[in-house]
Amino acid sequence: MPDRGIVLGPNRYGKAEVRVVKVARDTDRHEIEDLSVTSQLHGDFAAAHLSGDNSHVIPTDTQKNTIFAFARDGVGSPEAFLLRLADHFTSSFAWVDGGRWEAESYAWQRIVSHGAPHDHAFVRSGQGVRTAVVVADGDERHVLGGLKELTVLKTTQSGFEGFPRDRYTTLQETADRILATDVAARWRYVGTDVDYNAVYESVRGLLLEAFAERYSAALQTTLFEMGARVLEVHPEIGEIRFSMPNKHHFVVDLAPFGLDNPNEVFYAADRPYGLIEATVTRDGLAPAPAAWEGIAGFC
Amino acid sequence: MPDRGIVLGPNRYGKAEVRVVKVARDTDRHEIEDLSVTSQLHGDFAAAHLSGDNSHVIPTDTQKNTIFAFARDGVGSPEAFLLRLADHFTSSFAWVDGGRWEAESYAWQRIVSHGAPHDHAFVRSGQGVRTAVVVADGDERHVLGGLKELTVLKTTQSGFEGFPRDRYTTLQETADRILATDVAARWRYVGTDVDYNAVYESVRGLLLEAFAERYSAALQTTLFEMGARVLEVHPEIGEIRFSMPNKHHFVVDLAPFGLDNPNEVFYAADRPYGLIEATVTRDGLAPAPAAWEGIAGFC
Amino acid sequence: MPDRGIVLGPNRYGKAEVRVVKVARDTDRHEIEDLSVTSQLHGDFAAAHLSGDNSHVIPTDTQKNTIFAFARDGVGSPEAFLLRLADHFTSSFAWVDGGRWEAESYAWQRIVSHGAPHDHAFVRSGQGVRTAVVVADGDERHVLGGLKELTVLKTTQSGFEGFPRDRYTTLQETADRILATDVAARWRYVGTDVDYNAVYESVRGLLLEAFAERYSAALQTTLFEMGARVLEVHPEIGEIRFSMPNKHHFVVDLAPFGLDNPNEVFYAADRPYGLIEATVTRDGLAPAPAAWEGIAGFC
Amino acid sequence: MPDRGIVLGPNRYGKAEVRVVKVARDTDRHEIEDLSVTSQLHGDFAAAHLSGDNSHVIPTDTQKNTIFAFARDGVGSPEAFLLRLADHFTSSFAWVDGGRWEAESYAWQRIVSHGAPHDHAFVRSGQGVRTAVVVADGDERHVLGGLKELTVLKTTQSGFEGFPRDRYTTLQETADRILATDVAARWRYVGTDVDYNAVYESVRGLLLEAFAERYSAALQTTLFEMGARVLEVHPEIGEIRFSMPNKHHFVVDLAPFGLDNPNEVFYAADRPYGLIEATVTRDGLAPAPAAWEGIAGFC
Repeated sequence: MPDRGIVLGPNRYGKAEVRVVKVARDTDRHEIEDLSVTSQLHGDFAAAHLSGDNSHVIPTDTQKNTIFAFARDGVGSPEAFLLRLADHFTSSFAWVDGGRWEAESYAWQRIVSHGAPHDHAFVRSGQGVRTAVVVADGDERHVLGGLKELTVLKTTQSGFEGFPRDRYTTLQETADRILATDVAARWRYVGTDVDYNAVYESVRGLLLEAFAERYSAALQTTLFEMGARVLEVHPEIGEIRFSMPNKHHFVVDLAPFGLDNPNEVFYAADRPYGLIEATVTRDGLAPAPAAWEGIAGFC
Repeated sequence: MPDRGIVLGPNRYGKAEVRVVKVARDTDRHEIEDLSVTSQLHGDFAAAHLSGDNSHVIPTDTQKNTIFAFARDGVGSPEAFLLRLADHFTSSFAWVDGGRWEAESYAWQRIVSHGAPHDHAFVRSGQGVRTAVVVADGDERHVLGGLKELTVLKTTQSGFEGFPRDRYTTLQETADRILATDVAARWRYVGTDVDYNAVYESVRGLLLEAFAERYSAALQTTLFEMGARVLEVHPEIGEIRFSMPNKHHFVVDLAPFGLDNPNEVFYAADRPYGLIEATVTRDGLAPAPAAWEGIAGFC
Repeated sequence: MPDRGIVLGPNRYGKAEVRVVKVARDTDRHEIEDLSVTSQLHGDFAAAHLSGDNSHVIPTDTQKNTIFAFARDGVGSPEAFLLRLADHFTSSFAWVDGGRWEAESYAWQRIVSHGAPHDHAFVRSGQGVRTAVVVADGDERHVLGGLKELTVLKTTQSGFEGFPRDRYTTLQETADRILATDVAARWRYVGTDVDYNAVYESVRGLLLEAFAERYSAALQTTLFEMGARVLEVHPEIGEIRFSMPNKHHFVVDLAPFGLDNPNEVFYAADRPYGLIEATVTRDGLAPAPAAWEGIAGFC
Repeated sequence: MPDRGIVLGPNRYGKAEVRVVKVARDTDRHEIEDLSVTSQLHGDFAAAHLSGDNSHVIPTDTQKNTIFAFARDGVGSPEAFLLRLADHFTSSFAWVDGGRWEAESYAWQRIVSHGAPHDHAFVRSGQGVRTAVVVADGDERHVLGGLKELTVLKTTQSGFEGFPRDRYTTLQETADRILATDVAARWRYVGTDVDYNAVYESVRGLLLEAFAERYSAALQTTLFEMGARVLEVHPEIGEIRFSMPNKHHFVVDLAPFGLDNPNEVFYAADRPYGLIEATVTRDGLAPAPAAWEGIAGFC
């Protein structure tokens, strides 16, 4: 088809959402790692697209098998596991020059039975999902930690005032409203000798703490403060990006029913919602656009 | 249309999924109640169906308004709130002889900030959703407590052996497997002087504890034990019903890759899944089919 | 556990959402049947619940295998396929006295290629999902046809007036609004010699036609007319039940922007929504509560 | 906070998923346009993030109002509507230098009543969702058309052979399998005088046709052919990108039941799935990375 002046552009392929559960049973006190892993390879796959020659197409089924086989040695951390996959695929096949590996991981807590955490029975924690991405570009590695679906709300110490008005503006100013969002954040590691699990737990705590504290003049202010706090504490992180809905809670007008409503009864709306996306970064940090490609809603 | 020999059968109508959030701000330490409430009325609505006469059709919008107005005094518990709604609608309109009110409620935990639970900032707990149903049939009231989407897993002490085999059976017996399910349970109160919130917390703990303990010969055994434990501890509950998937975790065959797999690496499957539904009840309890009508998947 | 006064109540179990695709390749013009099938058995399973004795527990894996094996001979219609499964399980195992089999089926249309329907390439129709249920109770069989997620809307010829008002009523009357719903209907066959596929197509068309025609004084009136038309045309159907949301489309107030809005610009709301559920039945039809057990939201 | 060495990076904000329905009622034959619109502004919003100064923050509520107000004049096409929004916001506020506007649009068909398409009653087409994006960067405009969730399947004329094998490869070669995917495509317009609705319909048809025809040596080959055909026919399109799952349909092994299975009975799997992403582009086309930022899964 080259004579049509039509060519293959950027491409990658692989296996998505491999649901792998690893149990460590070395002692009676079992540990569990629960992930959904996606593997995508980048390289010379032109022949498969242009002429149906699959000699370079490592089957997505093989990528799946590799994920399960590698899990035999444990996961460790999502980031470390994805780095192992990246090294394997880029070193095993001459025509693979990079790729993208992504994971969600789901936290489990031990069930408390008669007052004690149980050895092998767990309840899934629903407070957010941990995310990780590794992008390999030749020898270069980009590592993104992250979380999503961490739903938070503050019942006061939030307002929205001083905004510009035009002919389409009907919104009233308020100095006291509910602020609610689902935190989705991704942070890029610039250091390589990182205890990813420990940093994850720390970042998660800092994000919650920064959300809770201080008066919020807008979700933008709170977002920036959340990011700044993470960068202040964690030198191994270069930038952090957020994509957060402003989940509106409207004060219900109870006056027609002879009732006041001093910010006590709210209607929680689904759609539309505000959507705030921003990057908090170290001054002078070299950008890494490859790390962020194809991630929805992070500008 | 009566001459067609076609008539109106059972019917009800109302407003579904009213998302109401109530904040108690009496002190600086705020409390939050977060519900999705559905109201459906039963009564004489034949004229609306047969001849377009709406003189009996209390608007679903009015039902929504009533939910918000009643929340002004607080929710208390989902069950108590639904009982208030039931009493209001059945006493306010002569042609309403009953109805069905349902709620989901979402738990929030205080964000821990600098080591202390915060006064007005919360993170949503994702460990299951509380459910409640009130059915009014004239003066009678049926009250169902419940929960759903409480995901649990045990990494051992579960098996499945001794089952019958036919020409379509290929399953192997096992004495050691992962057992995982999303607990969905609904229990019917037979007492009326109940601290619904306290019982809910207790039942939730008992269900988790019973799931964790003992060897599970099948999900059926575990289900019965979970129900029995609740009935033993709570005389105000007459029966409890479960609808629980058996979320299969298959041991991955790593032999082709030269690896063993002593129950350590699993593939978590989505579909199909086992589905176990059963009632655990007190011997001789009078059945209450009206309480259970229209609830999916609870036999 | 009998000495605890706690016993096993109604129960059933099986395999849910078996995704089976059957291709008929007898000629170059292939045909496709695409279903999600759920099988649940009813019978004497007490020992499994009470004492971990699985000698009666036909594995859910076996039920899955049976579904695939039976599909080897084709599906025919969802209803006929479920009846075959019902007969098999109730006749093969002495302790199985009934059960419940359910299916969703997904319609595919032939892709039009160069003006002609293609022999073996299809695009999935998204206009609603067909549903079917067979309940076996000993020798008795209940058969329900149905459909769901058939989204319809009329831009006029709908109103809501003449409703009662109380202190919580703020709704305005209107003689011209958008009426929109997702049709979910289930109908019970009273005849047995039925061409289920032909009746399904006919009922679907009648429901759409009845929705479209006439002024709708309320969704209730439209619902009844939809059901009546089906019963008038199809003597093999005894009753039909609906569960339909009133999907609100609110006229946006454009006056603050100096614009009129003569029912042209609407905001389509998600929640809350009206919910109308009703049965249209032949006068004097014997009720069949077993047919309807455990179906969500059909009163 | 500048003294912390922490600064604001790329950011944008707005209102997401504004569900607007526009009815044209000029004649008795009504027309309907049904969209979910997202508006996000880019510009100088640093003060809001850094110091809680909202004087530049055009409320997301105002953006919503603007969408509704602009719909008063009709939508026309999603792309044209988004271009109007882009021009409005970038010209009305000095500190707004660009933004991103996105739409989904939902197709409706006229209900056929007594053999004729109805004037004002519609059924929603479920065959895919149309998508559009406009990115404004100063005076520059990028326009992306697209569609998603268009589910297609071919029952033969698909295989996968000649792939490389390593120690993790267990997949068997096949020359006859089911090929199924959900088409998600986005194409970038390089021309500006475009009849967006007509091109959309044409592209949709070409994609279906190219999927249907020819033997597929891999989903990659089919993808490229789909893209090439679009570029051949539409000079106003410069590149087209795809993100398509390979939805596996596994031949069920019926041998244990004494049955053969000549590619007739399949198990349709959910996860994991293959994921193929690629760009088909004109040779020498200048890239436009800004057009593609923040779109999930399009490389």
